[in-house]
Amino acid sequence: MKNAVILYSGGMDSTVLLYQYRDHIKLAISFDYGSKHNKEEQKYAKLNCKDLGIEHKVIEIDFNKLGFKSDLLKSGGAVPHGHYEDESMKKTVVPFRNGIMLSIATGLAESLECKEVLISNHFGDHAIYPDCRLDFIKNMSNAMKYGTYKQIEINAPFTLYDKRHVGIKGKDLGVDFSKTYSCYEGQEVHCGKCGTCVERKEALEGFDNTQYKV
Amino acid sequence: MKNAVILYSGGMDSTVLLYQYRDHIKLAISFDYGSKHNKEEQKYAKLNCKDLGIEHKVIEIDFNKLGFKSDLLKSGGAVPHGHYEDESMKKTVVPFRNGIMLSIATGLAESLECKEVLISNHFGDHAIYPDCRLDFIKNMSNAMKYGTYKQIEINAPFTLYDKRHVGIKGKDLGVDFSKTYSCYEGQEVHCGKCGTCVERKEALEGFDNTQYKV
Repeated sequence: MKNAVILYSGGMDSTVLLYQYRDHIKLAISFDYGSKHNKEEQKYAKLNCKDLGIEHKVIEIDFNKLGFKSDLLKSGGAVPHGHYEDESMKKTVVPFRNGIMLSIATGLAESLECKEVLISNHFGDHAIYPDCRLDFIKNMSNAMKYGTYKQIEINAPFTLYDKRHVGIKGKDLGVDFSKTYSCYEGQEVHCGKCGTCVERKEALEGFDNTQYKV
Repeated sequence: MKNAVILYSGGMDSTVLLYQYRDHIKLAISFDYGSKHNKEEQKYAKLNCKDLGIEHKVIEIDFNKLGFKSDLLKSGGAVPHGHYEDESMKKTVVPFRNGIMLSIATGLAESLECKEVLISNHFGDHAIYPDCRLDFIKNMSNAMKYGTYKQIEINAPFTLYDKRHVGIKGKDLGVDFSKTYSCYEGQEVHCGKCGTCVERKEALEGFDNTQYKV
């Protein structure tokens, strides 16, 4: 039964989740919120949804225009390099991004009579992204449950997985990681230096056919 | 100290809240989400913010285009008449609207280094709007707190007030209710029959200069 909406960027984590729940997903949603890499991500999101026969929708909401501050956005400074734990990486936090994406997905899920919203946050995100942590997810899920007639909840199965674990899960599911995109720089070729490139390389090390031009 | 963002529609409840916290509000946000009455509300929102010298921003996010289902939206059916308790009034629920507005306001509050988001939900809303109830507000506030660096929280002082109580509060604060707009129909003159008109009339009964052309 198809009763889930998924937040789907086209990156490696959400593609693993897309594969895991492919039979239950009614709608995959990508957001174009004005980041440097949204447009490039979307190509891959579109591709994988087409492969799996899943309906895909892009929602545009320009955080630059609204006045949000983040180096991930087009209006922000240069994307810092290194691991997610580094202090400079905090500048890539888009304030309450997951809260906003989950809320809009919840409104759509209620309209589509779905029961849950899937999100692929994982343990490696916890260091700098507060809206990826277990306490956020638990409380947000309760807010969604109490705030909807369908009592919609979050399903975030990777919350306590590290990214390597997500990679292994994806390998087991047959995900072709060359058809996923992560880089914060948003160029056609992964930069290999920004936070998400560094984390991705480590997570997929030793796998065959896993990197997109890095 | 100005450390709050307010969800401000231009209706009677949020105008009372605007007056109550006028010295603490850094930014008032109105949403144009594609309802029949957003445009008319905004005129009054703009007017009151100007009167009080509060910065005001309109955020456009078209729920019609996204596929949301509600008779409050331009894409929905006719607005039903009667009290909020009536079964037909459920059709005016915009799925998870408060969750979406609070989330976007939270992202902006974090960018502006504010500590709280003000919302004017009240007890009369509880019957049909799940995202106005105490359980939603408590859990959403916790999600916002855990999901932001500034540990932003909700301030929703009318959650357990009925609408009459909000009206009395506004009278004490010197609110001119003729400069507020509520009607779901969205015409220049209040229809006097839709849910919000009926509730408004009862809440303000016996007051002077309180009704806008009803």
